[in-house]
Parts: sequence; C-alpha cells; structure tokens
Amino acid sequence: MTDLFPSDVYAERLHRAAQLCREEGLAGIIIGTGPELAYLTGSWVSSHERLTALVVPAEGRPVLFAPETDIGDLQLSALPHLDVLISGWVDGEDAHARAVAVLDHGPVALGSSLTTLHVLRLQELIDAPTLPAATTLRELFMRKDAAEIEQLALAAAAIDRVQERVPSLLREGRTEAQVATDLRALILKEHEVVDFVIVGSGPNGANPHHSHSARVLKTGDVVVVDVGGTRGPGYHSDSTRTYVVGGPEHAPREARAAYGVLHAAHAAALEQARPGVTAASVDRAARAVIEEAGYGEFFIHRTGHGIGLSTHEEPYIMAGNDLLLEPGMCFSIEPGIYVPGQWGMRLEDIVVVSHDGVESLSHQQRELR
Amino acid sequence: MTDLFPSDVYAERLHRAAQLCREEGLAGIIIGTGPELAYLTGSWVSSHERLTALVVPAEGRPVLFAPETDIGDLQLSALPHLDVLISGWVDGEDAHARAVAVLDHGPVALGSSLTTLHVLRLQELIDAPTLPAATTLRELFMRKDAAEIEQLALAAAAIDRVQERVPSLLREGRTEAQVATDLRALILKEHEVVDFVIVGSGPNGANPHHSHSARVLKTGDVVVVDVGGTRGPGYHSDSTRTYVVGGPEHAPREARAAYGVLHAAHAAALEQARPGVTAASVDRAARAVIEEAGYGEFFIHRTGHGIGLSTHEEPYIMAGNDLLLEPGMCFSIEPGIYVPGQWGMRLEDIVVVSHDGVESLSHQQRELR
Repeated sequence: MTDLFPSDVYAERLHRAAQLCREEGLAGIIIGTGPELAYLTGSWVSSHERLTALVVPAEGRPVLFAPETDIGDLQLSALPHLDVLISGWVDGEDAHARAVAVLDHGPVALGSSLTTLHVLRLQELIDAPTLPAATTLRELFMRKDAAEIEQLALAAAAIDRVQERVPSLLREGRTEAQVATDLRALILKEHEVVDFVIVGSGPNGANPHHSHSARVLKTGDVVVVDVGGTRGPGYHSDSTRTYVVGGPEHAPREARAAYGVLHAAHAAALEQARPGVTAASVDRAARAVIEEAGYGEFFIHRTGHGIGLSTHEEPYIMAGNDLLLEPGMCFSIEPGIYVPGQWGMRLEDIVVVSHDGVESLSHQQRELR
Repeated sequence: MTDLFPSDVYAERLHRAAQLCREEGLAGIIIGTGPELAYLTGSWVSSHERLTALVVPAEGRPVLFAPETDIGDLQLSALPHLDVLISGWVDGEDAHARAVAVLDHGPVALGSSLTTLHVLRLQELIDAPTLPAATTLRELFMRKDAAEIEQLALAAAAIDRVQERVPSLLREGRTEAQVATDLRALILKEHEVVDFVIVGSGPNGANPHHSHSARVLKTGDVVVVDVGGTRGPGYHSDSTRTYVVGGPEHAPREARAAYGVLHAAHAAALEQARPGVTAASVDRAARAVIEEAGYGEFFIHRTGHGIGLSTHEEPYIMAGNDLLLEPGMCFSIEPGIYVPGQWGMRLEDIVVVSHDGVESLSHQQRELR
C-alpha cells in the first residue's frame, strides 16, 4: 500500500479538513491511524497501542505525533512533501498532552480509529466537548473524486476477475475451506491484501458473516461467495455472488424462486439510487421487493455501505439514514435472503452515484450460476 | 482460532469480572470485540463498525449484543455453554441504548477495543463517568494461569522453530522482501495467523518498526528479524534475533561490540525481573547497561510489553511503570540499539515471572548469528 496520489491531493485534503473545523467551530481534529490518516496523508502506519495522532488545528500547521520507532515508516507516505510537522515521542513521554497542546481551547473532533484508552485520556486533557471526527470528515470522504473512483473501479474489476473463477472452484466433494484457500490466492494475485473470504454453502449461507468451514459441497448446494481485498493506495473491493454447485438447475425450487426476488430487489435499489434521494429510500426500494414476496424477515441487514479506504463507511444504505445521495458517492447494493437451516443468498455490486443515477463498478453477471 | 479452554474457565473469568466491578463500585463493563471478548468468552467474532458488546453488570446475567448477521459466528465460542444472554440487533436499531439499559446507574468501564464512535455514543447514554475497562480487567489479564502459560510456551516454541530457519534464508543477493515471503510461509506452518514480519537489513534495521523492502542483502549486513504469529486459542508469539549475512565475522567491528552490550543489557533485565520489583526497574536494568556503553540515545523504545491474547498488553516494561511484578506475568524483554543510517539490533525473548525470578519461554540461542 505504498501507491500514492500526487502530494497536492493530500495538501488540499488537509486544507479542507482545517476549513471544516473553522466552519464547525472546532479547535481542531485529532486523527489516529487507519483510513482517515491515509486519506489525509497517504500513510498506513500502524503503531498498535501507542498513540499516533495527526492533529489538524483550525488555524495553523498540522502536527503528526508518532512513536519514535515508527518515524521511519512515515517517510513512505506523502508526509515528506506536506506542510506537516512530524514529531516523535518515546515511551514514557505524555504524547496525548503534546497532541492536545497543539490546539486552542474549544471542541475537538476525534478520529474514528482511536480506541477507548486514547479517547478517555484525550478527554481528560481537553477541557471542552469531544465530537466524532467522522461527522466532520464524512463531508470529504463520502464524495469520491475522479482519481478515487478510478481506484475503486480498478478494485471492482480485480474482484470481478476473482468471481469469474468461482464456478470452476465449486465442485462436489470439496470443502468450503478448500475453496476459500483457492480464493485467497486468487484475491492476492489481484490485490495486495485479502480482506475477507466468505464461502457459505447450504445452511452456512444463512449466516451472512459465516467465513468458511469444513463442510463438504454437494450438488444442489446454494453457495454465497463474498470476497474482498485491498489494492493500490488502499482502496477496497467487495463483491458477492450466489452460486449453485452443479448448476442452477440443481438448486432447491424455492431457492431459485427466491433468487428471482433477490435479483429484482437489487435492480429496484439500483433504479432508486440517484442524486437527491435519501440513502434510506434505496434500502426501502430493495426491502419492499423482498417483503412483498414474503421474505422480509429473512433480510436481516441493511442494503449497503459506503466503500473507499474503509470497507465499510458512510453512506450507510439503511432505514433512518436521511442523507441525500450526491454524485461521487460510492457504496454497495447488497440485499440478501437468509432462511435459517436451509440456505442464504446475497447479490452485491459497488456503485457510484452519477449525475442522474448510479453506475455499477462491478460488471459480473448477476444471475444465479 | 477455534481452540477453546473448557467452558468453566470462561465462566470463572466472567464471574471474576463482575466481582471486580463490585469491588471498584462500577455498574458494569461494556466490552467490544478482540482480546478482551476472547478472554471472557472465547469468541473472536468481528463486527467491523457495527456494535458487538458484551455487557457484564456488577450484579446479574451478562448480555452479549451482536448484529443479527454475526450471531452464527458466536456459536464457535464458549458462549453456548455460558450463562450469557445473546441478543441480536438489526441495522437501524439502537444497539448502544440496549447495551446501556442492562446496567444500573453508576460508573461504567469501557473495553479497550471500542472505537471513537462507540465510546462517544455510549457516553451520551451513560449518565455517569466512564473509565477504561483495561484498568479493571488487567487484574485478570496480567496474571496468566498454567493453561495460558502453556499456550504461550507453545507459541514461543513455534516461533523458535521459525528463527531456527532464518540463517538459511539470509543469503547475499536476496531481498528483504523475498526473505519475508519465506518467513510468512514458515510462520503459517506453525501458527494460524501471521502477525508481522520484520526483516531490517543494514540501515533499515535502525528503524525498529521497518517491515521489509526491496533492499538486497550483502555479506556483512546486520539484519534484525522480528516475527510473530497467533495460534491455539489466540495466543501470540513474538521473537527477535539479529543476524549477520555471511556470519558474525563479517559484521562491522562496532556492531559486534555493540551486540555484546545488547546481550549484556538483555541479561541484566532477565536478572532483575522477579516478583516484587517494579516493571520500571527491569527497563532501568537493561537501559543502564546500554547507557553506560554510550548507546543510550540509540535505545529508543521501552524494554518490553506484556503478551497473551494481545501482542502488546500490560505489563509494559518501561520507565514510570511502578507496577510490581508477580508470578504468572508474561512479557517480552527486548532491548535494542539503533544507529541511524548504519544498522540496528534487537534481542527479544518472552519470559514468565516464576516464584523467584523469570523463566524464558524462548529457547533460541541469543548470540549474534
């Protein structure tokens, strides 16, 4: 994950983050590691439990505090070319106090990846309210620019090539785990990191987050294959297709019918999604089709999630989310139907909102295979 | 990571966690996913940004809230055999409010893995102070019982077998990355997960958290190899040795002398560590040897960290930590010397505090090889 955008991209993002702080009356933002840091600086440094914190004040120069042990890794990012002061700390120093001291008095937004010990310690030191930085930064994160959309399209094409190979892997007598091992190798050919591999056959498919097991595939098994990886500057792929071992003609009759419902629900969500409609309305469109067919109780998750430098991020396509879609937003559309003890099915593409609808970045066929 | 201890081990841990809450005047603990959840229930479930929360009230039955999508995975843990109510939630429900409602009014300890959005949302709902659960739970985590020490010993033996193979991998003309690929495969033979692979040759070794690069090894390079993985019920290995390509006789003369200092610092820390002394005194013992030899400014990290279900946990062996060591505590002893632009070296073993000293779980030779 050392591919970077040109450094002026990161400089502009940092500039806009400070601007958002001023608009929202924040003293500044304290970001940990992970997607938010990568978005603003290109760095995927990880410092485990030690504090790495990018402090972006509303006014003035950002400062990145990192353990002295990790300063070397920061050079792999855009940081050497950005107007960010890099400040190392050693074990025993109070890094949190140094981070807070950069900011004037006032509310502070805290980055999403900070964990309890960091949050509570920063709160002790910040004599003002703390807020989630995600709320502020989503203004930047949610709308992808052309270069980001290109990266997501490359990721979608990469995972399409993996799904293309799945039918040849799903043979009677093989285990889910064997298929998963093959998938892991295929994902690694196309990505730098394997994020997850779900091979849910028969009743296991009814558990949406089942990974894989020693279950042996047999003809007629409905199999959910949900795979994703990370590539380029850290963009994620995420794709689900449903297969039948031996071919769709061997599937239980009800499953074939239900798949038609699922496909229609997916199409309804694609049709609904466009600039100006709420995220909730896209969820509703898919859910209505599934409910009408009597499978409502078996669709036990939201219809989708944003994707970018995180696998799951805003916009969440779910009930209650009144966020209005805008061009450049990228998210999954992935309705599912899960009948406990029998089978599960899910159909997932990544889409980007265009000026009048959405464009799918996934180009795999959507039929039961 | 589906190996489990007998379920009464987890039942007893849950019982003691509730007891600690009562002793500390807490209404209860809200734990996220990760090592703390695995410690209390055997579950390594991950629900990404969705809330999974084990709520342990000071009085009454614990409740585990998890997304409906992840309920299936919970069955792989000890949970089906524990007196814990499992409660699924679906997207759109207020899982945080349900979690908080389990507890009586009073201070609440929050688990270490919870991230900003969860912490801030829980704080909104908890009308009382929030504290780090790590402080409460470390009373349990820090002292390993015989079964845990056995798992850590197995992990240490596994990574010893990996280090045993390193000399055959470090040949002139190979890159750090090629060596790392081999190491990853060797770690996977002995563990279920590769945690990290550091191959820091020549000047790269002076960056303690360098991972690996395209740098080509040449005779006389000093090479830091720090590797770790996860095995069994989730226990970590972590081992560092320093090598010289072509053999120690080819190392720069100063590096050979410095390694003698490092080895002595390691021995001094081993000698100092025993029940009743502070963690800080062990750091001091190692640091004093390195400072006396004039390398103090090049030892830029603490001497060690606890290890168990996390790679880094309490006790931290560092300045300022007045914690008294007790039998059953397991931690690394890993002094290092890093001369920027030239070379780095580190020597790391995992030790367990016995009734009168420490026993090393690592049995690899400690000489420069």
